Amino acid sequence: MTGYDREVHVAAVGTALPGPPVDNAALARVIGSESVFEQWIDTFIGIRTRHLSVDLETGEIHYSLADLGETAGRRAMSAAGVTPDDIDVVVMGTATPDALMPATVNLIADRLGVNEVPTYQLQSGCTGAVQAIDVAARMLRGGPYRTALVLGGDVCAKHVDLSVDFSRLAPSELVNMILFGDGSGAVVLSVDPPPAPVALREVLVRFVGRGRPPGQVVEWFGMGDRADGRVALREDFKAIEEQVPGLARATLEELLRAQGWIGADLDYLLPPQLSVRMTDEIVKHLGVHRATPVNCVADIGNAANALPFFQLEQLLPMMRPGDRAVAIAIESSKWIKAGLVLERV
Amino acid sequence: MTGYDREVHVAAVGTALPGPPVDNAALARVIGSESVFEQWIDTFIGIRTRHLSVDLETGEIHYSLADLGETAGRRAMSAAGVTPDDIDVVVMGTATPDALMPATVNLIADRLGVNEVPTYQLQSGCTGAVQAIDVAARMLRGGPYRTALVLGGDVCAKHVDLSVDFSRLAPSELVNMILFGDGSGAVVLSVDPPPAPVALREVLVRFVGRGRPPGQVVEWFGMGDRADGRVALREDFKAIEEQVPGLARATLEELLRAQGWIGADLDYLLPPQLSVRMTDEIVKHLGVHRATPVNCVADIGNAANALPFFQLEQLLPMMRPGDRAVAIAIESSKWIKAGLVLERV
Repeated sequence: MTGYDREVHVAAVGTALPGPPVDNAALARVIGSESVFEQWIDTFIGIRTRHLSVDLETGEIHYSLADLGETAGRRAMSAAGVTPDDIDVVVMGTATPDALMPATVNLIADRLGVNEVPTYQLQSGCTGAVQAIDVAARMLRGGPYRTALVLGGDVCAKHVDLSVDFSRLAPSELVNMILFGDGSGAVVLSVDPPPAPVALREVLVRFVGRGRPPGQVVEWFGMGDRADGRVALREDFKAIEEQVPGLARATLEELLRAQGWIGADLDYLLPPQLSVRMTDEIVKHLGVHRATPVNCVADIGNAANALPFFQLEQLLPMMRPGDRAVAIAIESSKWIKAGLVLERV
Repeated sequence: MTGYDREVHVAAVGTALPGPPVDNAALARVIGSESVFEQWIDTFIGIRTRHLSVDLETGEIHYSLADLGETAGRRAMSAAGVTPDDIDVVVMGTATPDALMPATVNLIADRLGVNEVPTYQLQSGCTGAVQAIDVAARMLRGGPYRTALVLGGDVCAKHVDLSVDFSRLAPSELVNMILFGDGSGAVVLSVDPPPAPVALREVLVRFVGRGRPPGQVVEWFGMGDRADGRVALREDFKAIEEQVPGLARATLEELLRAQGWIGADLDYLLPPQLSVRMTDEIVKHLGVHRATPVNCVADIGNAANALPFFQLEQLLPMMRPGDRAVAIAIESSKWIKAGLVLERV
């Protein structure tokens, strides 16, 4: 075995959420159309709570992405028992950096006391956590690095304009207020096996553009529309509903095939976390009935680049030696299939 | 030799600029204080022309980053003689994506017909080209990939507000109009040696935060200031002037040491391209007098993530067998040392 064939392990996970959970009743009070709206969320979306960096009463932003990422990173490093000097590379995925420059990953690395190592920040949506884990794992496998800190997170607060008249918004615009949540997560990856080693057997990232229009657009200018008529946030939910289940299934099949496994070999499934309803649909469509699904979207909303870390945080303590898990993430901004294969050694 | 020790070569370079060069006289006409201003640019900055995506007369934006990146990518692929199916991974560096989502790299990959491969977009400033080359080269060395398309570029036009009264701007704000230029570049990296192989011997990326404040801030909300008093663009030129020469020298020394070379072994030096004056200062400070400096900032301005590709485009045809070159880039948003070592085989 050369230094390059090194196994990469998930040493520990850390997460961070801003403030207390915001339930649908609290959201309905801000948006203004209480009981019908609450029922609508419940029936069509299923998200019960989310955590927001913005105070819905005052509009103040209490947490930046750097704040949340710092906390998640510190927790992951502490749980893994590593110091800043042990970190050989830092990779972060986010759709909503605090600023275009400096990259938020560098603010976080600096606060954590990490220095003289390469740092990378990927501009990415729902597959960003997997992309960041991919880049970090490849760097570890290629050596000479031994330990990587991988971060992901989003703070959508900067796209929330509380001054608008919500009663005039179309449901397609209101839905973003309901779907998204803020948060950050981190993992420490290591070539040194931790006490309860969970090996990262495979990471898959595959762009599948094929000329299709984006399913989601988030403009760089943020909150508010522009004189030229461009809207800051746009989603094509019909396209997302149509494409994501098939892409998720293709991802699962490719991951299983690469391991020589079948669906019945899986003990845990970490499905895409678009909404509770869509996640349930996708799980049905994937048809791996033996595997226990690991979800968190009902409690924290669609926290984009943070989500897989929250799923991993639930998963790791449940895994027993020999247990196998697959995580799937699909990016609909411009279509990407992504996934992880994990096995408790 | 295992598959992992594979040498990575720069197979070809492609670049793209928007429209014709804009000289200082044209810029002075827009800004309004003609002759003094022109002299000032000449004396303190030295940039003669830049190319802009925005039409200074009408304010119209004629080229997006995706437009420029597509052209640069197509030119690099054509020069390398590779087809979209040959590309195994795409990595892009930019500080100014067209939108937060979808990532601009995916729009470009789609237009180029690249599919079913991993794509990554790094949020990065002046070291972004080196960071993107680093990620791609590590992926090639680790296999099974053979060919990577690396892109870099910036379109600052979205941060240029032609409606402001330029006579009321402080020099520290005006200077951005003079310093920056738009453009994009691309390289094809390959483990298969091209006809005139230039080997990528080393890539260095080192974050050096150490609690220092950022030298540059580019807010995500773009053009115009905000009600909360935040300014879209801020630079600490004093800090940049103080820090960059020392960081450039540390980068050069680390790169030379890793190869067992001394300064006199270098045939070409690709220095940081902050401005003509600063580049000249840095070259003096680096003290590698035998090496021919390769510059382009006087003609295209500080085109950030595009710059090293323009330098490489000049360099490659000049290199003869045995020739050695070092490229250095320093990011001042939150400090990063970065560099490349190239050798014509």
